[in-house]
Amino acid sequence: MSYSDLKEAAWAANMELNERGLVLYTWGNVSQIDRDAGVLAIKPSGVSYDKLTVDDMVVVDLDNQVVEGKLKPSSDTRTHTHLYRHFETIGGITHTHSTHATAWAQAQQPIPCFGTTHADYAYGEIPCTAVMRDEQIERDYEEETGVQITEAFAGRNPVETPMVIVAGHAPFTWGKDAAESVYNAVVLEEVARMALYTRMIDPTRGPLKQAIVDKHYLRKHGKNSYYGQG
Amino acid sequence: MSYSDLKEAAWAANMELNERGLVLYTWGNVSQIDRDAGVLAIKPSGVSYDKLTVDDMVVVDLDNQVVEGKLKPSSDTRTHTHLYRHFETIGGITHTHSTHATAWAQAQQPIPCFGTTHADYAYGEIPCTAVMRDEQIERDYEEETGVQITEAFAGRNPVETPMVIVAGHAPFTWGKDAAESVYNAVVLEEVARMALYTRMIDPTRGPLKQAIVDKHYLRKHGKNSYYGQG
Amino acid sequence: MSYSDLKEAAWAANMELNERGLVLYTWGNVSQIDRDAGVLAIKPSGVSYDKLTVDDMVVVDLDNQVVEGKLKPSSDTRTHTHLYRHFETIGGITHTHSTHATAWAQAQQPIPCFGTTHADYAYGEIPCTAVMRDEQIERDYEEETGVQITEAFAGRNPVETPMVIVAGHAPFTWGKDAAESVYNAVVLEEVARMALYTRMIDPTRGPLKQAIVDKHYLRKHGKNSYYGQG
Amino acid sequence: MSYSDLKEAAWAANMELNERGLVLYTWGNVSQIDRDAGVLAIKPSGVSYDKLTVDDMVVVDLDNQVVEGKLKPSSDTRTHTHLYRHFETIGGITHTHSTHATAWAQAQQPIPCFGTTHADYAYGEIPCTAVMRDEQIERDYEEETGVQITEAFAGRNPVETPMVIVAGHAPFTWGKDAAESVYNAVVLEEVARMALYTRMIDPTRGPLKQAIVDKHYLRKHGKNSYYGQG
Repeated sequence: MSYSDLKEAAWAANMELNERGLVLYTWGNVSQIDRDAGVLAIKPSGVSYDKLTVDDMVVVDLDNQVVEGKLKPSSDTRTHTHLYRHFETIGGITHTHSTHATAWAQAQQPIPCFGTTHADYAYGEIPCTAVMRDEQIERDYEEETGVQITEAFAGRNPVETPMVIVAGHAPFTWGKDAAESVYNAVVLEEVARMALYTRMIDPTRGPLKQAIVDKHYLRKHGKNSYYGQG
Repeated sequence: MSYSDLKEAAWAANMELNERGLVLYTWGNVSQIDRDAGVLAIKPSGVSYDKLTVDDMVVVDLDNQVVEGKLKPSSDTRTHTHLYRHFETIGGITHTHSTHATAWAQAQQPIPCFGTTHADYAYGEIPCTAVMRDEQIERDYEEETGVQITEAFAGRNPVETPMVIVAGHAPFTWGKDAAESVYNAVVLEEVARMALYTRMIDPTRGPLKQAIVDKHYLRKHGKNSYYGQG
Repeated sequence: MSYSDLKEAAWAANMELNERGLVLYTWGNVSQIDRDAGVLAIKPSGVSYDKLTVDDMVVVDLDNQVVEGKLKPSSDTRTHTHLYRHFETIGGITHTHSTHATAWAQAQQPIPCFGTTHADYAYGEIPCTAVMRDEQIERDYEEETGVQITEAFAGRNPVETPMVIVAGHAPFTWGKDAAESVYNAVVLEEVARMALYTRMIDPTRGPLKQAIVDKHYLRKHGKNSYYGQG
Repeated sequence: MSYSDLKEAAWAANMELNERGLVLYTWGNVSQIDRDAGVLAIKPSGVSYDKLTVDDMVVVDLDNQVVEGKLKPSSDTRTHTHLYRHFETIGGITHTHSTHATAWAQAQQPIPCFGTTHADYAYGEIPCTAVMRDEQIERDYEEETGVQITEAFAGRNPVETPMVIVAGHAPFTWGKDAAESVYNAVVLEEVARMALYTRMIDPTRGPLKQAIVDKHYLRKHGKNSYYGQG
């Protein structure tokens, strides 16, 4: 049995991530899930993007067992599977160490919703997880990274805010498929950059008023949206 | 009846905006007006720049009615038409989310005239609109964005300062045609970047003295200008 | 009579300036002088770099009279000729609005010598001129820009520090010929960028100790230099 | 006798450094050592990267004597040989003036370990040397630069933290060969950039908790590492 379409979609999204300039060396990985089959295709660990082929992609199930592929999957695989198990409506996940989003992660702060660019894609601030506790690090670091993320989304809809920054680490983004998760990773990096500059111009600036956030989010999303040709 | 020249000019300016690196995905749109015909050509909503063709351009009248074209016009169309109705001497408008200009918009501050690069293109500070009131957001968000801009220019000549930043949102620029409005969008992004860095070097720095602002603006503009070959 | 070699050298340096990414649209100009002939070749005013040809270059004498060429010389020509008259050992001049150097100019501050990258090319801080007085602006703005620069070098050797920032405006650099002045413009932009970041990391940081400045400057310059193959 | 393989490896690493965008003009140099032969190949002084050939590489012994090559070796050669003599497990060294790492050097501060990107490559903060004393500058500046570095590593393992910033100057990185030292120079520049932005978002932010630093360093390094395909 072969998951060629799934591997192709995940591979293409990994290549797109690299072409968008969000990757240095092997930093970053993208996966896509086939919900019916209960498996995901993910980048292999430590393989350079300029040598990555579709056949290199690794298919694993939601218990992190390799189903197809000769290489070891990304060392972050258990974070991906945790997210797929808990965020049941998502179909693709991207992890990067993109510069500006990672700087917010290192500052251990959520990204305030300073403007409509942000509100067009994420509803309200982009959450920052808590710093992991020592016993979590010892238990299963990558699984617990997923736990940190799902705890940060308690009471929030991961579809409305398809991105998070992991304190002291870097961002994860998601979407309906791998391609959309990469798109959101690119958006997050730009939103993080704009937010950094906003803070530099005015360190006291708070978030944009809620009514404008609502307006922008809702003109692109939901049943009354009117952006685009759809 | 066909507005092929108008559509071609607006399309070319949209493509130039993208080539200048001011656009991420579908963020941004350019229009050009034909004052005699009372119509403008504008980018369709949500269409990717690498697939945009001249035929995709949408022609609308000043009441926002589509006159020609199969696609929906930009969701910002009503802002464009408001500006064309109130700034009667302008012929093209560009809207972007360019990084540094948007950061000033998010900081909700005008860009001070710190130097001659700024003064060569905009006479005095680049205004920042007020934040929109809730009832405006509910009424007609895009039209009211135009209202915010024209109110910010009360007592000012939009030809002398062909650019504005909308608080919490992003910039708009204009010019005698679509191409000039794109040129001004590129200038604004660079001026906004320099102003950010100026503030970082010296957070207390005020604007350049008026006599130099006058000199630089007037050596490039007006009847005694002596810059260029004209 | 034709100054083809001089025009070729000045043209090539203008093109190099553009290729190095220091120019937006028509911002910036380079000249080279022939001391024996008492003339310089300079970029014409307002001509785009992608259309600039050798034949477009304008030859003027030290009294700013056009000797050869059909176009108007750069509007900054009188600044160039002032510098050539007062700095008798220089052979080429570059003016840019490069982003980071211009930010220091707008902050109206000299660039401190924070490190050896700076000390390798400029001996001590890079001076910032005084802001021009109103009567100077009225008299002859471009000539007086030169006056501001030469006054900022009172007691300093322009060969040891081949660069300056003009308060509220932008940088000028020079060298033994046009090519070297462009080289120094590129170095200045990078030094200005590093100095900005240094200030951001530690706003209280003062200049590097003089003994290291001396060492680095002297290992590249003067009779005991030992850098390079010369 | 010819050291063609050694020269080829050192040359290729120099070219890679340039292609990665870490070099302006002639700023930077890479060397590789052959421990058995007791010689290293290093870039010649002041030669432009776009003209650099394998034959231009200079082979010197650990007493800085030229063994092969027609050109003068890098003016920083004595720093390289000092490091090879004292860090006996390293095989390649890179020196750059890359922008962000140099800014930290100019700020005369170590780079705190703010996140896992840093921890993946360097164990704990990236040390900053002391500023050189006057008598060191007079004695042998380049040799003493090496002394400053080895003193900054007293009690530390240079393999665990293969990078340093020299106060007031710029970074040095190393690795098992020239190629790995270039890789580490690229990583350092990105880590330095992220650290700058982290400080800008929150000037009071301290280093990441030690347990996460340990986890990330050890999942990529040492006998229990599980990153990559190795």
